[in-house]
Amino acid sequence: MKHFLSINDIDALPDWVEEAKKMKEQPFQFKHLGKNKTLCLLIFNNSLRTRLSTQKAAQHLGMEVMVMNFGQEGWALEFADGTVMDQGNSEHIKEAAQVVSQYCDIVAIRAFAQLKNKMEDEAEKVIQGFVKYASVPVVNMESSTAHPLQALADAITLSEFASKPKPKVVLSWAPHPKALPHAVANSFLQMMQKQEMDFVITHPEGYDLNPEITLGCTIENDQNKALQNADFVYVKNWSSYSEYGKVLNQDSNWMMTQAKLGKAKFMHCLPVRRNVVVEDAVLDGPQSLAIAQANNRTYSAQLVLKKILEQL
Amino acid sequence: MKHFLSINDIDALPDWVEEAKKMKEQPFQFKHLGKNKTLCLLIFNNSLRTRLSTQKAAQHLGMEVMVMNFGQEGWALEFADGTVMDQGNSEHIKEAAQVVSQYCDIVAIRAFAQLKNKMEDEAEKVIQGFVKYASVPVVNMESSTAHPLQALADAITLSEFASKPKPKVVLSWAPHPKALPHAVANSFLQMMQKQEMDFVITHPEGYDLNPEITLGCTIENDQNKALQNADFVYVKNWSSYSEYGKVLNQDSNWMMTQAKLGKAKFMHCLPVRRNVVVEDAVLDGPQSLAIAQANNRTYSAQLVLKKILEQL
Amino acid sequence: MKHFLSINDIDALPDWVEEAKKMKEQPFQFKHLGKNKTLCLLIFNNSLRTRLSTQKAAQHLGMEVMVMNFGQEGWALEFADGTVMDQGNSEHIKEAAQVVSQYCDIVAIRAFAQLKNKMEDEAEKVIQGFVKYASVPVVNMESSTAHPLQALADAITLSEFASKPKPKVVLSWAPHPKALPHAVANSFLQMMQKQEMDFVITHPEGYDLNPEITLGCTIENDQNKALQNADFVYVKNWSSYSEYGKVLNQDSNWMMTQAKLGKAKFMHCLPVRRNVVVEDAVLDGPQSLAIAQANNRTYSAQLVLKKILEQL
Repeated sequence: MKHFLSINDIDALPDWVEEAKKMKEQPFQFKHLGKNKTLCLLIFNNSLRTRLSTQKAAQHLGMEVMVMNFGQEGWALEFADGTVMDQGNSEHIKEAAQVVSQYCDIVAIRAFAQLKNKMEDEAEKVIQGFVKYASVPVVNMESSTAHPLQALADAITLSEFASKPKPKVVLSWAPHPKALPHAVANSFLQMMQKQEMDFVITHPEGYDLNPEITLGCTIENDQNKALQNADFVYVKNWSSYSEYGKVLNQDSNWMMTQAKLGKAKFMHCLPVRRNVVVEDAVLDGPQSLAIAQANNRTYSAQLVLKKILEQL
Repeated sequence: MKHFLSINDIDALPDWVEEAKKMKEQPFQFKHLGKNKTLCLLIFNNSLRTRLSTQKAAQHLGMEVMVMNFGQEGWALEFADGTVMDQGNSEHIKEAAQVVSQYCDIVAIRAFAQLKNKMEDEAEKVIQGFVKYASVPVVNMESSTAHPLQALADAITLSEFASKPKPKVVLSWAPHPKALPHAVANSFLQMMQKQEMDFVITHPEGYDLNPEITLGCTIENDQNKALQNADFVYVKNWSSYSEYGKVLNQDSNWMMTQAKLGKAKFMHCLPVRRNVVVEDAVLDGPQSLAIAQANNRTYSAQLVLKKILEQL
Repeated sequence: MKHFLSINDIDALPDWVEEAKKMKEQPFQFKHLGKNKTLCLLIFNNSLRTRLSTQKAAQHLGMEVMVMNFGQEGWALEFADGTVMDQGNSEHIKEAAQVVSQYCDIVAIRAFAQLKNKMEDEAEKVIQGFVKYASVPVVNMESSTAHPLQALADAITLSEFASKPKPKVVLSWAPHPKALPHAVANSFLQMMQKQEMDFVITHPEGYDLNPEITLGCTIENDQNKALQNADFVYVKNWSSYSEYGKVLNQDSNWMMTQAKLGKAKFMHCLPVRRNVVVEDAVLDGPQSLAIAQANNRTYSAQLVLKKILEQL
């Protein structure tokens, strides 16, 4: 692994999960690894968990961290080749990526989908621009189509709370007032496919995710049917993929409730809109793993940084 | 003391002041205490002194610091229980506080009064939300109704410059073009009540502070009378409390002048509007302690952090 | 040297360049120097290279760094003496500078020219305000009229790539859609005057720089003539100085091309607008030193910080 861009950069997921769980017990054990190494966070979108957990992970490893809100603090970036840059963008990704590489040992980037143009989002121009031109490893802190640090944290959480070998896990779409990206769902899917699990996706019609990513997954449009005998229910909104970026459905019947959840554990990546995505009773009850998932964000980032540091 | 929210969290003010003054002489003496500990600053409002002095204090103690401008960089927070979160707010304080707690050892919060609704401000929803849901100690970096790190710095400054056992201290209201919160005045008052001082508050009619806080204090609406034989004059604007958040008076006769100050020392928490709150001659003269007060912000924060670290 | 404000604060440029080049080979060699020392970056304008390279330099030296986006995060500053501060500005530079000095050992400031009023810009009110009132050394991270950290990095780069004792260096104006400051050009000029070089400035009529700074320099309005036998071509836009801050010319014939460049090395401080200032072929070709220059920003800042730390 040079870069950590998607779940596909994990060679052996169960081993990674075990290693992360061990590191969580002694978070400062590898503090020597990051000595005189600098992590640069380039943040193009809002962030709470990712911003803080990645910093914390780097501190555990003894790294220095530089945080830059690229959109507000830097220069507007141009991504196209051959452009005559006489408009709003002041700096080309070619220069930005090469230059930043010289000031740090690892660069982590957060740049969301715009949800306007599927092809543009799938081109992942920000993170792929850095991959192409940077001379240091690139870590994905949520790109247009993937959020693998979240999915790795979810895998750790599933492992911590699973009480049987092959639990049933349901990814259940939920309503939301805004159009949200597919990144979290995509990476969760890909992570599930790397493990032996009984996995079902449920969503209303029109909310199929990218078929290249769901390939081979069980999809059930009847939420109640999908939820039967679930051990874990991962709830998440995403906007339509076929009618790209559109909000087609806000049917509150899709909201997760304690009644629907049954005895399953509830999972969500946060932030979550209470009583829209999931009712209070679930979030405030003992079956919610949302806070535990957020905690594992530190160890998921720390494992990725550790693996990269070991190869520098 | 689990949290440091107000002057009432100080058990023995004179002891604290002495300890802070000793720490100021050897600021790095307790650098071991913060090893592998992280302070997270969550900043909802502008800040110069608080932002930098609290960071500096943490560095003296060997802590790592993560700074987050919550309003711009994070998600808009919801505070009410039971809300259907289908409007602008993306994350509930319940999740935010629990999650942030997992990434740091101490969280420090700055969230000003809105000055629109007295009950809302007095509910201190931001800082009390963190106190309620966070699992780590919370430090107040100025909330709606209190700024105890400032008042503790003021106590240190008073102690450094007092030339007699029970000096006369006057808190004198001053005019200001904008409506300002009561936090600094409230905490100064509470701090004064914890010491043996000859203390008088002077302000125009209509500017009484919260009577629950001024209870037992001498209030004198004639500024000249109040200032007689003062050793220290603490000048500060606040908006009306009874006509909550209103600017009722901009009478420049209330501005502090060298003539009025006499031989007293001048104090102000900064930032200060020159020639509105106080004339240049005072600020630029040898009787002003404003810069010394700002310096003591480092040691006030450092003492609070040290006391919390010792209990972790 | 107490402060580092302009190229004139460099006593012996060739010695500085040699020292920087040595430090670049062992960047952590002087990590002990910055122990328990704090650098505060006060940033009033956008920045990528300066923000990150100065942080990295400080980390190499073992310093703590506090970064503050002063415009967004602090209080609007007043600079004039004697003002009645009843308008938008909340804090006077007198207080801000004295106060910040108490929280750090070195303060570095970035505050661009406004390009509206020549006299105001040349008064350098932000950085000179800090110099006047701060009690710690001040480092210029680009002021209205000077960018000496860039010019020092350029001197290092020239030294690394020069293949003969007295190379020919051309500073060539280029078109740009926006009005840009003169700071980079000014400091480059001043740096060139401190060395034995064959130096020519070329620009269209109306683009003469401050004659006090260009005094003694060869100026040639015919770009082709100027470029003959050049070893290094430093390309940079600036707005008119005589018609202060105006864009008088956007003639794309002034853009640097591979054909014009010949065998010379290309230099630019970045960010650069591709195919407006310089064509892709130059930036993407082996003669471009722009990335190397950006890399040397770290060592230019590190040398300045080291020299200041040694005197503290």
